[in-house]
Amino acid sequence: MPKSKKQTKHSKSQNDIEEQKVQIRSQLKQLGEKIYSDLNSQRFPTIHFPSRSVRNIVYDKKTKQYILGSNTVTRTASNIKQIRSVTQLTWLAFFANELMSNKKSSTLRDVYYSSQAYAVDYTDQPESDAIITDLESVISTARERLNIYPEERSAIFGDLDIEYTVPGYEGNRANLSSHPDGYLIGPSLSTADFVDTSAEMIIAIEKGGLFNRFIEEKVHSKYKAIIIDTAGQAPRTTRYMLKRLHKELNLPVYIMTDGDVYGEHIAMVIVSGSAGAAHLRDLTVPSAKWLGIWASDIAKYKLPTIPMTEMDFKRVSELKRDPRYQKGVWNKELDVFLQIKAKCELEAFSKYGLTTIVDKYLPEKLEQAKSM
Amino acid sequence: MPKSKKQTKHSKSQNDIEEQKVQIRSQLKQLGEKIYSDLNSQRFPTIHFPSRSVRNIVYDKKTKQYILGSNTVTRTASNIKQIRSVTQLTWLAFFANELMSNKKSSTLRDVYYSSQAYAVDYTDQPESDAIITDLESVISTARERLNIYPEERSAIFGDLDIEYTVPGYEGNRANLSSHPDGYLIGPSLSTADFVDTSAEMIIAIEKGGLFNRFIEEKVHSKYKAIIIDTAGQAPRTTRYMLKRLHKELNLPVYIMTDGDVYGEHIAMVIVSGSAGAAHLRDLTVPSAKWLGIWASDIAKYKLPTIPMTEMDFKRVSELKRDPRYQKGVWNKELDVFLQIKAKCELEAFSKYGLTTIVDKYLPEKLEQAKSM
Repeated sequence: MPKSKKQTKHSKSQNDIEEQKVQIRSQLKQLGEKIYSDLNSQRFPTIHFPSRSVRNIVYDKKTKQYILGSNTVTRTASNIKQIRSVTQLTWLAFFANELMSNKKSSTLRDVYYSSQAYAVDYTDQPESDAIITDLESVISTARERLNIYPEERSAIFGDLDIEYTVPGYEGNRANLSSHPDGYLIGPSLSTADFVDTSAEMIIAIEKGGLFNRFIEEKVHSKYKAIIIDTAGQAPRTTRYMLKRLHKELNLPVYIMTDGDVYGEHIAMVIVSGSAGAAHLRDLTVPSAKWLGIWASDIAKYKLPTIPMTEMDFKRVSELKRDPRYQKGVWNKELDVFLQIKAKCELEAFSKYGLTTIVDKYLPEKLEQAKSM
Repeated sequence: MPKSKKQTKHSKSQNDIEEQKVQIRSQLKQLGEKIYSDLNSQRFPTIHFPSRSVRNIVYDKKTKQYILGSNTVTRTASNIKQIRSVTQLTWLAFFANELMSNKKSSTLRDVYYSSQAYAVDYTDQPESDAIITDLESVISTARERLNIYPEERSAIFGDLDIEYTVPGYEGNRANLSSHPDGYLIGPSLSTADFVDTSAEMIIAIEKGGLFNRFIEEKVHSKYKAIIIDTAGQAPRTTRYMLKRLHKELNLPVYIMTDGDVYGEHIAMVIVSGSAGAAHLRDLTVPSAKWLGIWASDIAKYKLPTIPMTEMDFKRVSELKRDPRYQKGVWNKELDVFLQIKAKCELEAFSKYGLTTIVDKYLPEKLEQAKSM
């Protein structure tokens, strides 16, 4: 366990979360009051929110993210085709408020089934999920802040003292290096207060196997790092954690992925978000650096490769048209992939011994990243 | 936190694990000595082990499990077609021994890439995985005991004090109710010593969302339960944990799954193993009880359903031919599925409120299970 801890500037973080909750509930209340006021004035209830249609997802050069443009959508009970979705959205806002009042969490699937208790009709879960995304847009708030979670799971490990804020655990503390298989990032951890850490960086890694290797090889103490297993494409809760760790602890974020176009995009989504979450902020770390595996590392480190598939090539073409991939390492490495027609996995370093990725590759790439 | 703890009968469990390691390494050594001795006597090295062919997977009525029959396979370097697999198997035994000596863990994928460091040739990872299963058969030991893990993840929560045995953590203790998102079940947890618990039962549940709900609703304290999220079909590490918890703490195991044929089989695999692991013991809890959702519960609890698909019907026909499904609840519920042609999910209880599954269904089914 590292000895010198640096006090975080924030006993503030818990207050942030409490403040956030108050604000979200006030937004939900406003939505309700708008509907009441419409009805009181004998108007059909009408809800406006930013359009998420592909044409309204625009690249914002300043923030280097996809955001929603100025087009809005109007849902009104005066349109017979929209009565259904207006009702669903109104019910969902009510239900989210109930969840928050009762300090209960739920899953996307629970919400779908819960609707049946209120005779609110959904054809299937995708319809329910879409309404949840609508509500996110209306109040510009991720569903997780409304206590609605997907089933995805990722993990964290490192010298970070946290203090829980969930019911029954308020004030309890844990150090995230105390369980060497890693701490699951769920509702409790993502809303915990960050109390103290000796860490000087965050390393996000794509795979559980490597996450375990990093812990076994003590990357957390050798590099004073908090390690995060993104378990593939980082779930939104994990991106929210990365953002909080970066912002509240003021720590740089480094990302390690497989050496393929999907890995590169996993890193990009952490850096600048996804088109699917263009209606949300606070899920990105624009200064995060993709350490690798770069396409150009494959030759440099003589890594065993796998031929790229039709799908891989198609994905490269798609990303080549994405404004975020027009320059720098993002663009260059896509070109190298096209040139070498091969990809490789993080485990490929095992060819040179199980610890090579930690002893050699990681320090060299960290050095390189710092000079970029 | 429950107050009265019952001391486990086993400070023995750590010794078990240490003993197990000593025994496994002695088996690996025997294998090596056999090869040396063959060579010394100018014989081609030859390895015998139980055949895993479908014809040799037999149902054992006594243990109510699939086990391997008496057919054996011989791999010999005198057969030009087998030199490759004999070499791979010998290398793998060496590599597993290295992992154990160095107290390192690895993934199936790591093993595949590590082979390249020794110029041991595999066409692809499936070939490597198959050799790992061969070695399991040779020494009748699950790969996890050789420190080779898949990437699967499941979680545990409840009042159980554990003591780690992995390097750097020896003697450290944790209480598995201290992180309300659940403790990941990985290499460290599955080899930890169980020190103390107040729990009186284990509840395994198929889905992360419900696992979180159970924690939120304090199932662990209301029912004095240790809760396990199997994350779908329980990974072998999780089945090993269930077996250890049952055996070392002498606690009954209850299983909750979706109300469909796949859920029923998730329960069956915990009870009696899988054909794929017929060469291994110590992964089953024959006395474990499937609480539900039974097909017959769907009507009884008026649960919202989903029509069964072609695939579901096909799976029922397959299981109807499985000797383990010939009687009792296993057989009866398959028949009800065929009759109602519908299935349902655990989240379906949300129709009657988020806590109905915990407040009503769970106690009723526990009561029923105890009287069975």
